[in-house]
Parts: sequence; C-alpha cells; structure tokens
Amino acid sequence: MSDAPDFFDSRWVECPGHVRVVAGGGLPQGFRAAGVAAGIKPSGGRDVGLLVCDADEVTSAARFTASGTAAAPVLVCQERCTLGSLRAIAVNSGNANAATGGRGLDEAARMQGAAAMAAGVSEKRVAVASTGVIGVQLDGQTVLRGLLGASGELSRDGDGTFGEAIRTTDAFPKQVALDVELPSGTVRLSAQAKGAGMISPRFATMLCFIQTDAQLAPETCDLLLGVCVKRSFDRISVDGQLSTNDTVILQASGASGVVIEPESDDELRFGEALDALLRQLAVLIVRDGEGAKRIGRVVVSGGDQPGVNRVAYAVANSPLVKAALFGGDPNWGRIAQAAGAALPGTAPLSLDIWIEEVQVCARGAALPHDGAALAEAVTRPEVEYTVGLPGEGADAELFFSDLSYEYVKINGEYTS
Amino acid sequence: MSDAPDFFDSRWVECPGHVRVVAGGGLPQGFRAAGVAAGIKPSGGRDVGLLVCDADEVTSAARFTASGTAAAPVLVCQERCTLGSLRAIAVNSGNANAATGGRGLDEAARMQGAAAMAAGVSEKRVAVASTGVIGVQLDGQTVLRGLLGASGELSRDGDGTFGEAIRTTDAFPKQVALDVELPSGTVRLSAQAKGAGMISPRFATMLCFIQTDAQLAPETCDLLLGVCVKRSFDRISVDGQLSTNDTVILQASGASGVVIEPESDDELRFGEALDALLRQLAVLIVRDGEGAKRIGRVVVSGGDQPGVNRVAYAVANSPLVKAALFGGDPNWGRIAQAAGAALPGTAPLSLDIWIEEVQVCARGAALPHDGAALAEAVTRPEVEYTVGLPGEGADAELFFSDLSYEYVKINGEYTS
Repeated sequence: MSDAPDFFDSRWVECPGHVRVVAGGGLPQGFRAAGVAAGIKPSGGRDVGLLVCDADEVTSAARFTASGTAAAPVLVCQERCTLGSLRAIAVNSGNANAATGGRGLDEAARMQGAAAMAAGVSEKRVAVASTGVIGVQLDGQTVLRGLLGASGELSRDGDGTFGEAIRTTDAFPKQVALDVELPSGTVRLSAQAKGAGMISPRFATMLCFIQTDAQLAPETCDLLLGVCVKRSFDRISVDGQLSTNDTVILQASGASGVVIEPESDDELRFGEALDALLRQLAVLIVRDGEGAKRIGRVVVSGGDQPGVNRVAYAVANSPLVKAALFGGDPNWGRIAQAAGAALPGTAPLSLDIWIEEVQVCARGAALPHDGAALAEAVTRPEVEYTVGLPGEGADAELFFSDLSYEYVKINGEYTS
Repeated sequence: MSDAPDFFDSRWVECPGHVRVVAGGGLPQGFRAAGVAAGIKPSGGRDVGLLVCDADEVTSAARFTASGTAAAPVLVCQERCTLGSLRAIAVNSGNANAATGGRGLDEAARMQGAAAMAAGVSEKRVAVASTGVIGVQLDGQTVLRGLLGASGELSRDGDGTFGEAIRTTDAFPKQVALDVELPSGTVRLSAQAKGAGMISPRFATMLCFIQTDAQLAPETCDLLLGVCVKRSFDRISVDGQLSTNDTVILQASGASGVVIEPESDDELRFGEALDALLRQLAVLIVRDGEGAKRIGRVVVSGGDQPGVNRVAYAVANSPLVKAALFGGDPNWGRIAQAAGAALPGTAPLSLDIWIEEVQVCARGAALPHDGAALAEAVTRPEVEYTVGLPGEGADAELFFSDLSYEYVKINGEYTS
C-alpha cells in the first residue's frame, strides 16, 4: 500500500512534479538495513531492526518527544549521541522501555553498545529507539541477539524488513522510497514510519526514520527536518496523547555525490520532497489511528497565533467533533463549542465556520445552508473544517482521526 | 434514585451528621416551582420550568460558563440581571439558544420579560437558562406559552416537575431536598441539577439550581457558592468539553427565620451541607456521563500547583485512561504517559502512582505488585488513582467518567 506508486493519495498532499515513487522501495546509496524476529513480540513477528550508514561523513538530525516521562532510549539518544552525525539506528518493538527507571537506562545503553559493535561504529554515533508496552523491563539479551542477527542480514533493500520490525499495531506499512530530481542531479529519499497516531494502548509511539544519499551540511539537515516535522508530525492528533517514545531521525550519506548547498534551488526542491513525504506519512499515521474510519483536517485563521493554535487543538481533540466525524454528521455546533471552550472569556465570539467549504456559521450565528448536500460531503474519507477567528495573519492546521467503537475496543478491551 | 434516602451514595462524599435527606423532596419555605411540556422537546416531555421566590429580600449568587461561545441566556444573565437578588429562574430544555447571534439574544430577553410578567417580579431579578441543541433559533412564542402555563402550577412541591423540565438526556434525576440542623435552627436546602457531564451531543449543558430558606447575606451566598462550586462542578470532566450554557444559581429566601451570620458555626455547618450536596450532584453528573459504566477520581499532589492541575486534567481527560477505566484494566502506563505529556521538558520525571492505594510506580519506574488483586479492584464502580509529583503543598482532585462504546454511539450515530 505505502510502497506503491499511489503513495501520495491524500487530497491534502501533492506529490511535487520532480518526485517519483520507486516501486518496491530500496534505500539510498550508502545505507543498509534489516529487521529480524528476536522474540520480544508475543506474535513472533519482526521486532528488532538495525539501519547502518556506511559513509563516515554522514550527517543527521533528530527530533524527540517532549514528554516528562520520555522513555530510556530517548534519554540515551539525547545524552549520549552525536546527533549531527549518526551512523546507525537500533530499534526494537514490543517494549517501549519507558517508566523503567535506572535499569531501563542501562538496558538502552547496552542496546546502543551492542548495535555499535554489530555495525562497527562508535557508540555515540548509534541512536536507539523502542516502541511497545510501558512499564515493563526490556530484556537486553533478546535485543542483543536480534541486533547480531540483523547485522548479518544488512542490505540496501532491507528497508522492507526494517520497517516491519519497527511497526506494532499498525494496520498497514508506512514507508516509501522516492527519487528526487534536483538541478544538480537525482537523489533518493526513503523513510520508514510507524504509528497508529499515539493511540494504541501498549504501543503508544510514533517513529520515523528518513534516509537520503544527498550530501547535506549538518545545519541544513537539522533545518530541513525541523521545518518539515513542524508541518507534519507536529500537526497530527489522534487523541492528543503525547507519547513517551516519539523519535524522528534524518540521515544523509552523501553517497550520490549530489551536494545540497544552503539556500540553493537544490535545497528548495529537496525540501519540497521531504515536506510532501513527511506530510503524507503523517496523514497515513492519522488514517491508521486505531479504528479510524475517516480523518479530518481543521484549518483555523485569525489575528492571534496562540488563540488560533488553541482552537485548532480544541477542535482536533474534541471527542464530540471526532464522534461526529465518525458518524458522518455535519454537527458544526460542536466546532463552535470547542472553539468557545478554547477561548474562555471572549463571549460573544465572532466566529465563522465552514465544513467542506460550505459556510454554516457567520459571526457566531447559524447560517442557512444545504444540509443534505453537506451531510453527503462529510461521509467522504477526508473531511475539511475551516474556522475563522477575528483578525488576520495567523493560521494553524491539524490532521485528526475520528473516534470510533474500534478505538474504545482496542483501548478498553484487553487486560495488561 | 436521587430523592431517596440513599442520595449520598458515593464513597467520595460523606453525608454530614447534621444533614437529613427529605424523602419525596419539597422546596424550602418561600419557593414555588413548576415544569410543563411546551412542545420544544420532540419527545413531548416537560421542557419549560419556572422557579419563583416569594420573598422580596431573597439573596442569590450565580456562576456561569467561561466559554467564548457562551449561549444567549448566559449573556443576558450576565448583562441584565441583579445576580445578588434573583427572584425567579426561567429555564427551557430542548434548545440551547447558543450560536444564535442577535436574534438569540432577543429571544433570551423576551424569555426573561415573559417570566417577569408570569412571576410578577422585575425583569432584572429573573435569570434565564437554556439547554439543548446548539445553533437553532429558539421559538420564543413556545417558551412564552410554557412559562404562562408553569406560572399557573407553581407549588412548593413543584421541584419534581421543575427538575424534569431542565433535564435532557439524563438517565436519572439529580435532585434532592435536605434538612440541615444548624445551631440556630433547622433550614431546608434543595437542588435540581441536569447534565450528563457536558458530553451529550446536542445537549451539552450542566445546570444546577439550589434553594434554601436560610437567611444569607449576598456576600455569604456568593462566597459559599464559589467555594463549593470549586470543589464540585469545577472538579468534574467527562470529555473536557466546556459547555456553552453552564449555569449554577443559589437562592436564599430567609423564610425559615434562621439567620446565617458570616464566620459563625451556622455558616460552617451550612457550608458543609452545601459542599456535600454539590459534590454528590457532581459525582452523579459524571456517573451519568453518557454511556458511563464506571467513574474515576484522580488525586494529584506535588510542589507546584499549576503542574499538579495540569497532570490531574491530563489524566482525567486522557481517552487512553478512560478506555482502560471502561475496560477494567489497571494500565498505569497510561497514567505515566498522561502525566509526562502534561509536563513537557521535565524528563526524567520522578513520579509515584497508586491505583486503589496499591503503589505501581515509584520515582518513575515500575514497582512489583499484586496484579490480580489490582485487576479485581478496578472493576468496581468507583476507581481511585493517586499521583505523586516531586515536592509538597499542592494538590488537585478530579472526578471523571470512562470512555465507552455507548459514548461513541450517542455522539456519533445520529444525524443533526
């Protein structure tokens, strides 16, 4: 599904003209990866992945969860890694290594050490990531065996098994390889993501690993990743639940020989490709929000950026709005309620609301509209909400999933 | 259920020794009320209520929603009422008169005027309240007919029909009459509340009207209501969705002749009764959170009041915690995740967690415990979560409902 040519299938993401999906995938030059079944997942599926860049001059950038209960691997990455030149990434699924205290930190450090040995690189150039149940100690021996196994299977087309090893309850893969035509030559850009929108019960994690064989200065790497994450993974919400393990890493091997200079056309074009890639992956994560039948986008504009942000989050995280989205119900009163709740003390608020470009509320009051046509429009797979607050110059966009029976089932009906 | 002697049935609310539930209800001296079916509710049920205090020297106090999209009746109360000496309250259910613009304000003012005529009091001493669908114009003629009808049926035992007229999707009544023994004599205290925790789709409103025949200075009235609302209706969350119509009003007729002086034992005892009453009503509203099978209380303590509040709200509003509560799953990892998300940038957070007084997490790490005993404990109707943050001196308490299939059904499976 995700490595097919129709990867860019959301109405909200356009595939740039200079970007081509590579059928069947395949990592950029200079990268090898593999995923194996080490025995952490009860299902017996692949659960340990190793990704290595063979180029010593690799540059990289990373972003992590801001959670106060950030998992041990996140803390190890932040405290022990040279994040601007990561050679290898070691990942396990089935256990988040979160809320595991000092022993958890030791296990994450052991995992880093084992991956460094297996990949033949120094420890501080190995990032670690985990995803799975919170509050259970990770069995380091099992991870170590997995990493050794994976190191024997590393290959350029190992992105498939690597991607599999980082996924947990994902209903479909979220990975792709792109060829990006730049003025200075063609580079490859690939990514493997996992996540059902931070919503799965024991597997509350969003991970994304991105590789390219373009040559990027570390500052460019960091800048591009920062900008694109803000427009993608920072703009999604399934249930507003910040994870303990969120990790995004971009690595550039430079092996293509194509150099991307700061503020060049190459950078612009490469940035467009990275932006489309991460936005589509973000939409896929929301679409995979456990049990999701339908997804929404809310765009809020107005004169005050903090207020605009608050309203966007209030709408995207409102269980009433989400349940209406699930039910295919154009219930704009819930949008008005969420907006008002986000801006206490502003009554009467002059509020405009559009659903699928049909205006239903003007300056805070109901507006007559074709209810039947609107009711039909909100049953499509992607529904758009637009909210106008007083003033101009600020806007915010969020992608969100609906609230379904399946969500309650997955998150309520099991015993830990 | 609510006017039976077992009104105080929550483990979290104690009935003070000097308080007795009056079987069958009945308003305090000086109050008359009635509720009638005027034709607003499609069901044909009672939907217009009128409550009148015959004592001209009545004192009162009120609290309203802070929503930026506050409904027209809320704005009319705030702008046109003498809130310290309200004689009458006019309420309709079936239509919230919210997001109705200037015409909605006109209709709310007409409702106030009609109630003033029907009750024979001045307009500014009439409060109005509405609950029901958002974004539909209220038919003032229908409300007017209802108020005239109600004015002909006013009686001291009209609290039953009045309470019925303010309810919408409530699964059970939330009203009671109490006799409160004070050092200076016995007074009656009654209340009628509605609300399924701000969660019902078209009926997103919490209303509560409280009457007593004690004599209270307006400042005492305001002080007692403020303190008790902070410990009750301000401490509940079904889905974190602030309503457009929330209204709480306390009226004191003084007709019992018992005078409650500031800082007296009478005030202390009366305050205890009011506190227990509002806390029990608040628990009932959460318990009626549409589809709720189980309710929870989270108590967070630590050294920083804003942080303690944020964690309490994060836990109470987390769909993951709520789904676990529904499923009877002692999944404390979700408590840790919610706490960490509420306190970004504090990792590693030293966090203690207890469920039903069993400690499951100490200083941020899992603690071995009897899982089977805990799993049994969390299947009871009321489940207690305790979270300890670093430091001392601050704490916060919240009551919350679970997240059930029924919630999704009620809020997703209908068309507006």
